[in-house]
Amino acid sequence: MSKAFEELMPYLDKSMALQTARSLFEWDEQTMAPFEAADYTSKVIGIISDEYMKCLINDDVRKLIKKLKDEARQDKLTDKEKAIIKELDKTFEQLESIPPDEYRAFNELTSISNRAWAKAKKDNDYQVFAPHFKKIIEYKKKFASYRAKKGQSPYEVLLKDYEECLGIKELDIFFDKIKQEIVPLLKQVSKKSDTIDKTYNFLNYDIDKQKEFCKYLSGYIGFDFNKGVIAQSAHPFTLQLHNHDVRITNKYIENNLESAMFSIIHETGHALYEMNIDDSLTQTLAGTGTSMGMHESQSRFYENIIGRSKAFWTPIYDKLVDTYPENLKNITLDHFIKGINKSEPSLIRTEADELSYPLHIIIRYEIEKMIFADEVDVDKLPELWNEKYQEYLGITPTNDADGILQDTHWSFGEFGYFPSYAIGSAIASQLYAKIVEVMPVEEYLEEGNLTPIREFLRDNIHKYGTSKNTNQLLKDVTDEEFNADYYVNYLKDKYEKLYEL
Amino acid sequence: MSKAFEELMPYLDKSMALQTARSLFEWDEQTMAPFEAADYTSKVIGIISDEYMKCLINDDVRKLIKKLKDEARQDKLTDKEKAIIKELDKTFEQLESIPPDEYRAFNELTSISNRAWAKAKKDNDYQVFAPHFKKIIEYKKKFASYRAKKGQSPYEVLLKDYEECLGIKELDIFFDKIKQEIVPLLKQVSKKSDTIDKTYNFLNYDIDKQKEFCKYLSGYIGFDFNKGVIAQSAHPFTLQLHNHDVRITNKYIENNLESAMFSIIHETGHALYEMNIDDSLTQTLAGTGTSMGMHESQSRFYENIIGRSKAFWTPIYDKLVDTYPENLKNITLDHFIKGINKSEPSLIRTEADELSYPLHIIIRYEIEKMIFADEVDVDKLPELWNEKYQEYLGITPTNDADGILQDTHWSFGEFGYFPSYAIGSAIASQLYAKIVEVMPVEEYLEEGNLTPIREFLRDNIHKYGTSKNTNQLLKDVTDEEFNADYYVNYLKDKYEKLYEL
Repeated sequence: MSKAFEELMPYLDKSMALQTARSLFEWDEQTMAPFEAADYTSKVIGIISDEYMKCLINDDVRKLIKKLKDEARQDKLTDKEKAIIKELDKTFEQLESIPPDEYRAFNELTSISNRAWAKAKKDNDYQVFAPHFKKIIEYKKKFASYRAKKGQSPYEVLLKDYEECLGIKELDIFFDKIKQEIVPLLKQVSKKSDTIDKTYNFLNYDIDKQKEFCKYLSGYIGFDFNKGVIAQSAHPFTLQLHNHDVRITNKYIENNLESAMFSIIHETGHALYEMNIDDSLTQTLAGTGTSMGMHESQSRFYENIIGRSKAFWTPIYDKLVDTYPENLKNITLDHFIKGINKSEPSLIRTEADELSYPLHIIIRYEIEKMIFADEVDVDKLPELWNEKYQEYLGITPTNDADGILQDTHWSFGEFGYFPSYAIGSAIASQLYAKIVEVMPVEEYLEEGNLTPIREFLRDNIHKYGTSKNTNQLLKDVTDEEFNADYYVNYLKDKYEKLYEL
Repeated sequence: MSKAFEELMPYLDKSMALQTARSLFEWDEQTMAPFEAADYTSKVIGIISDEYMKCLINDDVRKLIKKLKDEARQDKLTDKEKAIIKELDKTFEQLESIPPDEYRAFNELTSISNRAWAKAKKDNDYQVFAPHFKKIIEYKKKFASYRAKKGQSPYEVLLKDYEECLGIKELDIFFDKIKQEIVPLLKQVSKKSDTIDKTYNFLNYDIDKQKEFCKYLSGYIGFDFNKGVIAQSAHPFTLQLHNHDVRITNKYIENNLESAMFSIIHETGHALYEMNIDDSLTQTLAGTGTSMGMHESQSRFYENIIGRSKAFWTPIYDKLVDTYPENLKNITLDHFIKGINKSEPSLIRTEADELSYPLHIIIRYEIEKMIFADEVDVDKLPELWNEKYQEYLGITPTNDADGILQDTHWSFGEFGYFPSYAIGSAIASQLYAKIVEVMPVEEYLEEGNLTPIREFLRDNIHKYGTSKNTNQLLKDVTDEEFNADYYVNYLKDKYEKLYEL
């Protein structure tokens, strides 16, 4: 091992431990902690976060990074060491430019702002959130400007935190393509929406049985219960302490069969990514998914491409019918498959179908771009939001709770995150095009054999952690970098067939 | 605030945060973490423990403690500051004398040793545990000798970690009294054991209903679900992150009605102690129960004195019958009260009734004393254990799993802990004698009103945290220090009545 890397190890280990503790507190807060605990426990988290900053952002680490970047250029480091230094350098760059007092003030603000958002959403009162929202935006603009390279726009800085391979230029092209192809398709589909019956989905579904079936689904896809657990929370999410401890949550709705099932498939996709990272990267900075875009590709691949296919349900649909015979005994597999793929314009992103989903993302992307280009006032955002929903989806929210207040991301200052969802869907289609080339996917699914698909993703994507970025992975697997054509073609094919257009 | 105390604050805050993180990892390990996680997460816990040591055990803190002890003697500190310095001094003394490498080696050993114990118990093979047990004992002897004051025996050092007010001398007197009074009483009771029927307790009791009823019981006694949660684990326990986040676990057995009910009452007693500590002490070293003896007094007070009384069950027994009408519809309240107080000699401490319980503790105390006085070889311990069970309880374990291997404590090196259970029972009786003097306890219980009892304990015991030790608390509440007569009299009165002796 390089001498400089050896010197760096204690910093890496300590910051890993502190970060793992922060993750556990976050998990606990969302799944277990009692109501009154947060105010006191936040003091603990604050101290641990400060220690994390002190451990990583200091002159000793700065010098070691500089030295190790030189050694990397001279090819004196192993691939693993290079990957770790690259991630460390990224984290260092993100944090060092922000004065510690501003960073602390911002963290306090997000906590207040998130609570204001929750109240605003509950009371359907945007004005409760607006003043905090303004401050959050100011901070994010300032932080991004500290970090922006010459000529780089602040929004570009934020976007690249979630997906380094795609900036404004690439996303504009991607989303223009979606708009051109998907908006007209959605209009055609909408006209035929009555041809698919989905009333069965909204009958009463016992929650204990939902939990049991969801657990079965997760295991069926490959979730390893020796390395992970499933819990319950207000919104489903995935969180890992390391690749041998990957946790997902789910949310169950009594009058909605699909909701929990596709949430668990989605989160299982995220979990498989983390569980399958190579053990040589365990508990290092390189031991996690390479980007949010790539992560969402894994969850949306399983949720939509696999999870909504007839072949996937062929061997297991009977089990679902047996779980709820009173509701499903007259619903054929074909009927069910049409139901779970039914598309209609709707107001809520998280409940949107596969076809209309990217339009929800485009709306957020365009609004974020305008915010960071100072082209819109915070007070005008609800209006802008509603106009865009009318323009792209043909419907207008009747209130802000179902409109601009629906997502939690902005209350935490997470700007630039939303595109990851659409990028993920597109990457999933690009990977799928390759997978069907190299193996008889449908046949495997019909046999209930998901192992070859899981192993393909493990060996070509998951195991690398952050050692390769999105475009490097795509290039190595599919022979080309990110290409949204696969996604557009996939959606067109699928929905033209489904609705016999 | 004293200037020296101000200088100490960052050390106190940081060590509090690291300790809270350790507690959360422990909670998570017992209640949630997936099977494979432990080996990797232990690295994280190790690093956090090292940081905790580094933060507290250093020359700066040593100097500040010295200075602040002087200031305390000169009465320049507030009571709260004094209490914190006293606890810090105790922790410092415990840790500083042990060389860090020995401390780390011991922590690694306990982890291995605990696993060996679990295997030994499972396979009923003492020899699997014995070699680790020997090492654990050697370490504990060495650590205790580092810390022993002149003329102090190592076992005395360990005992006082759990209850500073009672050493070997006091415990010898306490346990001699028990032996003289309780051993003969138990023999009389054993002869009449057939007069109480308890078969109803071992019918089938649906576990979901048990969970629901136990939750009800906990809330009925006063558990505040805004400040706490109940989870499930292999062995019931209580753990707090601070006084606004107090967690208990329970274990449910399908063919045993009592087990989970009295476990939850017991743990709720511990939880109320922690929840009721004054907010001025929150997240300080003084913000926890003052000793294990006093802690066990609170749990055993609720479990036995309150929880096994007729008055307690009078308003709620119907609810229990309604939960399990098929099993309990013919069991009268009087029958049930006799059942939950039935006494017979048994092999397992955690399942022992209130009367025979202290004899299980005496056996462990006497064996621990011999171990630390080098009077017995580790290989001879199973034999010694069995002899003592025959002597005090009149029965002999048929295997080591039900004998010397039954408890987990020794595998972690927790010597000197067991007496706390008996001390706790005795303190509970002493407090109860005072409580019946100052309020109509039975009347309150029959009305379903537990508030006055809870408030009495809160205002006289709980709120002080560690600001007063056991004898100070007892002196202030009952006008005398620890006195085991109350316990002996309580047991004699209760069991003579119950068995009409």
